[in-house]
Amino acid sequence: MNGCVFCRIIAGESPAWRVAHSPAGVAFLDTRPVFPGHVLISPRPHVVTLTDLPPADLAGYFSLVQRVAAAVEAGLDAGGTFVAINNRVSQSVPHLHTHVVPRTRGDGLRGFFWPRRRYADDVEARRYAERVAAALPPEPDLP
Amino acid sequence: MNGCVFCRIIAGESPAWRVAHSPAGVAFLDTRPVFPGHVLISPRPHVVTLTDLPPADLAGYFSLVQRVAAAVEAGLDAGGTFVAINNRVSQSVPHLHTHVVPRTRGDGLRGFFWPRRRYADDVEARRYAERVAAALPPEPDLP
Repeated sequence: MNGCVFCRIIAGESPAWRVAHSPAGVAFLDTRPVFPGHVLISPRPHVVTLTDLPPADLAGYFSLVQRVAAAVEAGLDAGGTFVAINNRVSQSVPHLHTHVVPRTRGDGLRGFFWPRRRYADDVEARRYAERVAAALPPEPDLP
Repeated sequence: MNGCVFCRIIAGESPAWRVAHSPAGVAFLDTRPVFPGHVLISPRPHVVTLTDLPPADLAGYFSLVQRVAAAVEAGLDAGGTFVAINNRVSQSVPHLHTHVVPRTRGDGLRGFFWPRRRYADDVEARRYAERVAAALPPEPDLP
């Protein structure tokens, strides 16, 4: 083993409250939930960030995320879900994990997406768009 | 057209600062970014939430998200990215869109994932895990 706590959970060598698993990954409760029923989904291979997940693994992994999002909403009578990935910054465990958090209107979590700003003008917006576009990797071949 | 602002952007009928597109979706700047360079990626079909995306579209759509996350990090010299989907609650436009926000250590965004709580005991944690697991939809056939 590589010392990764999520690899140990996936291998069944560390305890966790599992809620789902598939050939692509394992889903288990976050032990310090934002709201109870907050689930983490990790792919079985040890990859650090979303961009490290091989193209061939995308469908299987996000299918599991999708099923967990449906189950969190239906099983906990939630009004919706928040699905999030921290890549590097704020990433507590360096093994890719997607958070699925049950949401209810008025639960206070909307605070996250504020404050927003606006671009000063079209010149500034265009500059940011061009910088991102110029750094775009090529499309991979998907299975 | 169905009146959806993101469908109009995807069709090229409404202006947007596009940064990427593929057969699966279109990526464009959020006009009110959390941080400049904050991108939204929407699938071309009008689906409302993550769970509404057909299994056959998962690989193509998340491949585009993955490429944008790489480009935001590299193109904006960011330390990492925050990738998030609001399903229903806090979802401003009812057409699936994934946020990719550039992150830098100390940028203040970590405030989001706090405060956390703990489960009162194993009984409470197990109850939540079982409720989610019991609501899990079956595994779809993937292409």
